Amino acid sequence: MTIPTATLLVSCPDQRGLVAKLSQFIYSNGGNIIHADHHTDAQAGLFLTRLEWQLDGFHLPRELIGPAFQAIAQPLQAQWQLHFSDVRPRLAIWVSKQDHCLLDLIWRHQAGELPAEIVCIISNHPTCQALATQFEIDYHYLPITSANKAEQEERELELLAGYRIDLVVLAKYMQVLSPDFLAQFKSVINIHHSFLPAFAGANPYQRAHERGVKIIGATAHYVTPELDQGPIIEQDVVRVSHRDDVSDLIRKGKDLERIVLARAVHLHLQQRVLAYGNRTAVFA
Amino acid sequence: MTIPTATLLVSCPDQRGLVAKLSQFIYSNGGNIIHADHHTDAQAGLFLTRLEWQLDGFHLPRELIGPAFQAIAQPLQAQWQLHFSDVRPRLAIWVSKQDHCLLDLIWRHQAGELPAEIVCIISNHPTCQALATQFEIDYHYLPITSANKAEQEERELELLAGYRIDLVVLAKYMQVLSPDFLAQFKSVINIHHSFLPAFAGANPYQRAHERGVKIIGATAHYVTPELDQGPIIEQDVVRVSHRDDVSDLIRKGKDLERIVLARAVHLHLQQRVLAYGNRTAVFA
Amino acid sequence: MTIPTATLLVSCPDQRGLVAKLSQFIYSNGGNIIHADHHTDAQAGLFLTRLEWQLDGFHLPRELIGPAFQAIAQPLQAQWQLHFSDVRPRLAIWVSKQDHCLLDLIWRHQAGELPAEIVCIISNHPTCQALATQFEIDYHYLPITSANKAEQEERELELLAGYRIDLVVLAKYMQVLSPDFLAQFKSVINIHHSFLPAFAGANPYQRAHERGVKIIGATAHYVTPELDQGPIIEQDVVRVSHRDDVSDLIRKGKDLERIVLARAVHLHLQQRVLAYGNRTAVFA
Amino acid sequence: MTIPTATLLVSCPDQRGLVAKLSQFIYSNGGNIIHADHHTDAQAGLFLTRLEWQLDGFHLPRELIGPAFQAIAQPLQAQWQLHFSDVRPRLAIWVSKQDHCLLDLIWRHQAGELPAEIVCIISNHPTCQALATQFEIDYHYLPITSANKAEQEERELELLAGYRIDLVVLAKYMQVLSPDFLAQFKSVINIHHSFLPAFAGANPYQRAHERGVKIIGATAHYVTPELDQGPIIEQDVVRVSHRDDVSDLIRKGKDLERIVLARAVHLHLQQRVLAYGNRTAVFA
Repeated sequence: MTIPTATLLVSCPDQRGLVAKLSQFIYSNGGNIIHADHHTDAQAGLFLTRLEWQLDGFHLPRELIGPAFQAIAQPLQAQWQLHFSDVRPRLAIWVSKQDHCLLDLIWRHQAGELPAEIVCIISNHPTCQALATQFEIDYHYLPITSANKAEQEERELELLAGYRIDLVVLAKYMQVLSPDFLAQFKSVINIHHSFLPAFAGANPYQRAHERGVKIIGATAHYVTPELDQGPIIEQDVVRVSHRDDVSDLIRKGKDLERIVLARAVHLHLQQRVLAYGNRTAVFA
Repeated sequence: MTIPTATLLVSCPDQRGLVAKLSQFIYSNGGNIIHADHHTDAQAGLFLTRLEWQLDGFHLPRELIGPAFQAIAQPLQAQWQLHFSDVRPRLAIWVSKQDHCLLDLIWRHQAGELPAEIVCIISNHPTCQALATQFEIDYHYLPITSANKAEQEERELELLAGYRIDLVVLAKYMQVLSPDFLAQFKSVINIHHSFLPAFAGANPYQRAHERGVKIIGATAHYVTPELDQGPIIEQDVVRVSHRDDVSDLIRKGKDLERIVLARAVHLHLQQRVLAYGNRTAVFA
Repeated sequence: MTIPTATLLVSCPDQRGLVAKLSQFIYSNGGNIIHADHHTDAQAGLFLTRLEWQLDGFHLPRELIGPAFQAIAQPLQAQWQLHFSDVRPRLAIWVSKQDHCLLDLIWRHQAGELPAEIVCIISNHPTCQALATQFEIDYHYLPITSANKAEQEERELELLAGYRIDLVVLAKYMQVLSPDFLAQFKSVINIHHSFLPAFAGANPYQRAHERGVKIIGATAHYVTPELDQGPIIEQDVVRVSHRDDVSDLIRKGKDLERIVLARAVHLHLQQRVLAYGNRTAVFA
Repeated sequence: MTIPTATLLVSCPDQRGLVAKLSQFIYSNGGNIIHADHHTDAQAGLFLTRLEWQLDGFHLPRELIGPAFQAIAQPLQAQWQLHFSDVRPRLAIWVSKQDHCLLDLIWRHQAGELPAEIVCIISNHPTCQALATQFEIDYHYLPITSANKAEQEERELELLAGYRIDLVVLAKYMQVLSPDFLAQFKSVINIHHSFLPAFAGANPYQRAHERGVKIIGATAHYVTPELDQGPIIEQDVVRVSHRDDVSDLIRKGKDLERIVLARAVHLHLQQRVLAYGNRTAVFA
């Protein structure tokens, strides 16, 4: 039985004494810090930190931790998030026709690797319906056309609200989310099947093959209105050779996509990723 | 004492019997093949091969191997190159201010890793003069301005001709070679300090840092008139994190640049790279 | 519709003319070689080759290819195997309690990545029965004790014979196969959860953590009577840090195990692996 | 002009309030923390931390920082080291016949990558004397035989004392240091040319080739009396294939050795490595 913990992700303008003040808040309330990692982005003048402590023996009841911390955060002009390890985030996984990333996330969830609930699957194709049925996950088939996109995104937002979704994972969802959608739902992770910024946009494997690269990659990032421009969480690569045709690149790339997306989701669910501007600090 | 070998690099339209015909040419003349590697690029309809055999016991004298092979190559519409392992290619290394790739190549040459002669160093800066003196390599300082570029390239071509240079290695030479120059001297390898096609052009590390990538790379490629678009020989990458500022990326990248360039030059000098169109087959 | 091909894997004492003789055999019978790769192991005095050609237009009927080739192979003292791409090998996957490698292979099979049939699953535990049922694959639960091992291996051999199994894949099967078993069934691939030869034997992750390594690995190899000593087909690694405890190593290692095993099985099924002595030539 | 910093490396039994107490010490004295990283090794019950702060504006004069911190460290039973970024450690590089790691460290020093002084070179061979002369570094040739080893180690210890050496870097020094020596001089980093614990001891590349591994590695570690058993600082690997003979492994390995050793020395010189028991925490 693991002891529940609380985690604070904090960013604020850099100044003297931040580590002392933040850790003092936890210590003075009887918390035992099990992970503390800090980063100063000198260029941005920002201080970024992750603090995780055990809740047993902590004097403040959960509902008062936020308000109490706000009294410290406010004068520091700090932005912060508070998470409890035993509150499992609720995921919606979005797919198109390919199922490898979806299956991978489902398997990891079953294996106990993902501290989250996979609540529903949303797709613009019926392809993965059978899979959803097999694992008893709600499946919503919402085909997208240029004509119905706005209206379908409305329905998608209703579903996310209805399911109380915390995080959307685009597990090879081959549609672009509109700025309107992203203005209303911000927590979205996408896997792009290239080593961004190389081959942003469509058909990256085809273009990688045409360019004759010797290494291909995959990139997991938060989604922003600018296509493939969001903060990068994780990337990895694999070697290819002149013997690999496009289908080989796709096959090799699928393994990358699965693992890079899973790592990014895992890091996010452990509250180890702090996005700021167009970058991330990953307190791994 | 290693036995001298001959190496044929051949490309021609694919058809039945090519492996048989080419290997038969060597066998029927008493050659012992020690390396044979073939590749068919179905998309391009091209057959590409590398054949290396020991010269002792080979019935044809060296000067007749080419003509004899041409009799076979001509009906196959084959393009081919013939190399002898004991004929050491003559290199000119071009640099600007940074010396790490130059030093690395010089050390490898001294360590016997590079089957070639480093004949001269050409630079648009005087910075590396002392290094050249130290290792007793001719150094030519040819500053480049928009005004004198054409004329300096003329002098560079004269130097290459005078030194009978086989290969130019751009070891962090921060000038673009003109199409005119490349029309007259084609065998040029460049190291680009990014994972092409990401961050082609100037200041790749600065841009990689701004983009917040988690991996940086380096790319060695043959130079063509289109900047950073030539056939890629070798690439490699290294992980970076939010803690790495631009200077860390540059430091980590320098190790990549040295090794990727050295690998590419080594592969080229072993006649293992066959460039065709915008790609390479690397018979490693 | 892909054209069926034939593949020859040949090893014999090195001598002049082997490439010519072997390719001539294919050409003279009207075959179109689509892959030919050769290797000479000078130390072992061995010539190793893989030849793949398209069967359409090949003059010899399938049943005569072997006998015809034997006439060439015999004087060369060559050992050889002949495979046809449209004859799908029959796999038995052996597991214990962990299902990640099994699931991964099943998914790849469903995705069309593995040119083979997954015919049955054999386990010394009932754990994966439900999975087998879900995917409609025969499952045989054969618990092993020191007392019944010999007798259970007899039953296992009967099952392999009954199912006409070509390849056994030990997908985290935590039992050692006896020399007797291996004398009767030789084609077995195992995934070992370490970077062999480091941490051969039991509990590699625990031992890797105790040793404080900064990188962990996985190794796929053919099984021989000497535990973890068989010819290595593929290996890969992943970075770990002081923050990773044993459970993190296990989690990260599981991704390696899946991918390294899948790559090895894929290479084997494409007839790209030629084992000789304690090593392999991988014609990838 | 970079601002000088102070760095504390601290390890002590884990307890509540450590981050707060340590950071408070710095804050209350007016220090601006630019890097703080902490790790709790639950198994060992140890808290490990690295704290770096800018010295300008810090109220305590340098000579009082240690005594003042001791007052905090003593009740915590903490072991600690204090370093100032503008005090450059003094290195002795030990080599045998191979010069690639030595040259690499010298070049990095010249390029400003290594915040240290390379004070002398000690070797059991005269091979690298010319190199030392070229770079104007004292060179001491101390041949080792079983007969004179104890006595030569005495002279080596005198040299280290005379030069006031802080760190010995074994840059391919092929002799084992005696327990007596290590009892008197503890700060020694070695590069081992294998992926430890694989191929500990002699001739790792030969043995790697015999084993037929697909990946080779290098390991930088602190030296302890047990050969190749000391705490690992850094490791890296490179792919090899059946085409690579022992000389190829050696060539490829040399690049690994240079880079892995340089990374380890760089991390050590930045006070980012905290060794405890047989492991290291690397606050990179």
